[in-house]
Amino acid sequence: MATPGAGFWSFGTEEGSGDPDNPGTAKAWCQAAQKFTGGISTKLCGKHLSPRGIKLKGSHPVCSFSADLLPASEGEAITLAFLQDVMDILLQYMVTNFDRSTKVIDFHYPNELLQEYNWELADQPQTLEEILLTCRTALKYAIKTGHPRYFNQLSTGLDMVGLAADWLTSTANTNMFTYEIAPVFVLLEYVTLRKMREIIGWPGGAGDGIFSPGGAISNMYAMLIARFKMFPEVKEKGMAAIPRLVAFTSEHSHFSVKKGAAALGIGTDSVVLIRCDERGKMIPSDLERRIVEAKQKGFVPFLVSATAGTTVYGAFDPLIAIADICKKYKIWMHVDGAWGGGLLMSRKHKWKLNGIERANSVTWNPHKMMGVPLQCSALLVREEGLMQSCNQMHASYLFQQDKHYDLSYDTGDKALQCGRHVDVFKLWLMWRAKGTIGFEAHIDKCLDLAEYLYNKIKNREGYEMVFDGKPQHTNVCFWYVPPSLRNTEDNEERMNRLSKVAPVIKARMMEYGTTMVSYQPLGDKVNFFRMVISNPAAAHQDIDFLIEEIERLGQDL
Amino acid sequence: MATPGAGFWSFGTEEGSGDPDNPGTAKAWCQAAQKFTGGISTKLCGKHLSPRGIKLKGSHPVCSFSADLLPASEGEAITLAFLQDVMDILLQYMVTNFDRSTKVIDFHYPNELLQEYNWELADQPQTLEEILLTCRTALKYAIKTGHPRYFNQLSTGLDMVGLAADWLTSTANTNMFTYEIAPVFVLLEYVTLRKMREIIGWPGGAGDGIFSPGGAISNMYAMLIARFKMFPEVKEKGMAAIPRLVAFTSEHSHFSVKKGAAALGIGTDSVVLIRCDERGKMIPSDLERRIVEAKQKGFVPFLVSATAGTTVYGAFDPLIAIADICKKYKIWMHVDGAWGGGLLMSRKHKWKLNGIERANSVTWNPHKMMGVPLQCSALLVREEGLMQSCNQMHASYLFQQDKHYDLSYDTGDKALQCGRHVDVFKLWLMWRAKGTIGFEAHIDKCLDLAEYLYNKIKNREGYEMVFDGKPQHTNVCFWYVPPSLRNTEDNEERMNRLSKVAPVIKARMMEYGTTMVSYQPLGDKVNFFRMVISNPAAAHQDIDFLIEEIERLGQDL
Repeated sequence: MATPGAGFWSFGTEEGSGDPDNPGTAKAWCQAAQKFTGGISTKLCGKHLSPRGIKLKGSHPVCSFSADLLPASEGEAITLAFLQDVMDILLQYMVTNFDRSTKVIDFHYPNELLQEYNWELADQPQTLEEILLTCRTALKYAIKTGHPRYFNQLSTGLDMVGLAADWLTSTANTNMFTYEIAPVFVLLEYVTLRKMREIIGWPGGAGDGIFSPGGAISNMYAMLIARFKMFPEVKEKGMAAIPRLVAFTSEHSHFSVKKGAAALGIGTDSVVLIRCDERGKMIPSDLERRIVEAKQKGFVPFLVSATAGTTVYGAFDPLIAIADICKKYKIWMHVDGAWGGGLLMSRKHKWKLNGIERANSVTWNPHKMMGVPLQCSALLVREEGLMQSCNQMHASYLFQQDKHYDLSYDTGDKALQCGRHVDVFKLWLMWRAKGTIGFEAHIDKCLDLAEYLYNKIKNREGYEMVFDGKPQHTNVCFWYVPPSLRNTEDNEERMNRLSKVAPVIKARMMEYGTTMVSYQPLGDKVNFFRMVISNPAAAHQDIDFLIEEIERLGQDL
Repeated sequence: MATPGAGFWSFGTEEGSGDPDNPGTAKAWCQAAQKFTGGISTKLCGKHLSPRGIKLKGSHPVCSFSADLLPASEGEAITLAFLQDVMDILLQYMVTNFDRSTKVIDFHYPNELLQEYNWELADQPQTLEEILLTCRTALKYAIKTGHPRYFNQLSTGLDMVGLAADWLTSTANTNMFTYEIAPVFVLLEYVTLRKMREIIGWPGGAGDGIFSPGGAISNMYAMLIARFKMFPEVKEKGMAAIPRLVAFTSEHSHFSVKKGAAALGIGTDSVVLIRCDERGKMIPSDLERRIVEAKQKGFVPFLVSATAGTTVYGAFDPLIAIADICKKYKIWMHVDGAWGGGLLMSRKHKWKLNGIERANSVTWNPHKMMGVPLQCSALLVREEGLMQSCNQMHASYLFQQDKHYDLSYDTGDKALQCGRHVDVFKLWLMWRAKGTIGFEAHIDKCLDLAEYLYNKIKNREGYEMVFDGKPQHTNVCFWYVPPSLRNTEDNEERMNRLSKVAPVIKARMMEYGTTMVSYQPLGDKVNFFRMVISNPAAAHQDIDFLIEEIERLGQDL
């Protein structure tokens, strides 16, 4: 480590950057910065006024450092100039983000990208000009997840109100554990979770819930609470003190159910995967058969995790039939609606989740189908108070019992997390800005687009659907069969060759940067494309483009 | 739910807001908005130009909705105007955040705040003017966590470069699970974690790690990995297949160790709390005694979680002695440096963590002592590959094995989370902007301020220190003894009255809004103040103010 000067806070001044009257060696530092235009150096170096018209003390060219920003004394002008420059970079990115003539991705292999720029961390500070340049560079290589032709993940798009709310959240820079330090956000979480429970159909929106860091953690919370409900002694005594538990979920369910079981000490062997029909929906008779089987072995079935919107097929498990079975065998019913929960906002599509009101807990990720910026995942629980009993440890330095306000708003002890990021404000502000009908229209539009894609390719030459029938969610799963493989015999050799088609097309998409869509194998089905649409920017022309692009990139295979 | 029009995306146009040439009923919608000045309505309603000088089509007053923003066609001007207005609100907040003449908090009881404003979610959208007003309102009631006199939590302050980085992160809106969709951020995580491991002292920065959603989850990950290292079969077979495990941590350690044990099916009874000395440091001989005791009972000690910087006292456990014991009994050594890890950046103070290089895993939260915006917590693991083996589930739709780039950069399967928020960029950008010496100077300054406070009150009338000697971290723990309790007999009645002093002073601080500092009881010690300093804005005058304020608010008690 190099020897620092008299310390960081005097560093700026020593180098002449803190005090415009005393430029010191600032001129040398400025050399690199001078080549940029429109940045802070242009605004503050050699000008009397900052962009906000706040007069600076001197008139010498000055290069600025992080130490010159607020809370440094007289840091206001330079802070406003710096943040305004950042803002301009972000606005510029945003506008190109939605521009169909720009690339979705400027792909570089990891080793290339590591060498393209010096990303290393050093002892000495960089100037704010360099920091601005770095921001531009980071965005240059970013994937444009809001681009109309970015279809790669379940979370796509960039909502402007959600973004504004996220900026505000960062600026407020607080923590959800107590009302004391996040009064507004804690109340908005309360209001929003109640509204979500109402929409699920729990009377009066009663119940409990929390925003957690993602659907996998929400699902793990559900498993944790279900176990605690049945065997509360597990909290103190551990799994050694209770019978062997078994959880049930479909073979198409999200891998987080198994991850949760591994983490909670239940073990992945105790997660029974229930068979699905050809559409990817759990088969209730198989569920019941496996529950009976587990009981006969002396195990205790404690959780069924049904899926509302599977990751690959977008399938909705038959919730009513599953609820009946859960009731019959007294098993906690969880619905993983991370992906499909958003359809509850649509009067046209919510029937697909009929029966969800009978669930004991629901995972619902507004950052997926509802287009809220990452991350925003809710776990909703029907029984109030259970989360608190399950997770609380009564840390006296956070949850003092002699505070002067209603302690029920101190929600931190409901979670495994201590500090918890504010994830609610962006959802809440978007909801205010769009209204429920705004989310509804967005969801209806995305499902319409998926149907448009399905109708377009179902009988088109060179396409084979992975499953028959109209998509229930926006997932459209298909193989593109290049000319050389059409009319060939359906044997292992063909499957082998077909399995290589999607990866090659995907790699070419990324190299050209024109679009991105996901692919994967599933069970005995070789690599196929999984198209999903959650991006508000996507339009019919983008679906048309995707088809043309797949054909352009795959015709020689 | 009200009946929507022809759908959300045409709603704006129907109401005349999407097309300035066709104002429709926009005038009525504008009425509420007209009363605000400086907002979008002023800029776009009745003006020909947006603030960026982009000419709008018409000249009628127009009120805008979320549906008019990008990606709506012709949404660019209104988007820029809207985001610029948001930015102005944030900049204004930021400047007052650092202004000592403003309140730290404008306190309202939960029921008051619920009634103060209509926070409810509705079917219909609100105008962008209303959204801007809402942003102002949310900030009005926010706690100014960057205020020079906010000392309430371990995370305080608001770093401008960190904030800019967080805004950029929100704008990039992506997910850490694969290189494919977060190339820059994944590489920066790699670079930053390696640097942190170097600083810990692991040769060449080798090892593994991840940014997780907070210190509690990082600690839980450590426990999960330690268990897996000793009994890899636990992943499939659960706790039923392995012996009874025991973990050890000090009685002053963070409650997340117990939370983790409860969640992982180990049980809180299997967390043995080791006694601390009067400064809050774990007593190594007691640790060894309890390990031997556990083994004699046939249990398997698998984890010692030492604390580097306890939450209340700021104590550093003797890591070298603990490392010797862990080595002797072959136990995983974890160091919870969530709070104290930052001291590794200071050549003056890092000796307090001597021995950390012998740990198997380390939690280190840059969002605490290093002032990175919330949240930013790292778990570092010495053995490479263990996190992956422990947590991976090989989801084929995310971690395709036939991708065209080096798959070792797809880090998602190391975590329990599937989606993972980008927490690294703000730390990385701050590091570039400050340099290591910048973090060092910040930490040295905060520790100097803590010593200043300690020196000021240790012999001052009306103060009693909770423990003797100079603080090792920035935690200064003390009782304020009001005049009526001075020179009274040290009995239960006095303790009883003393226990009520801090809560009353704290409640008054919040009602006046002048400052915030935490209090809590600990063991047999009744409520005392715990002062912590991590805020770069804090100066000697703020420490002086705190003392005066405590005396002003507490003299009549």
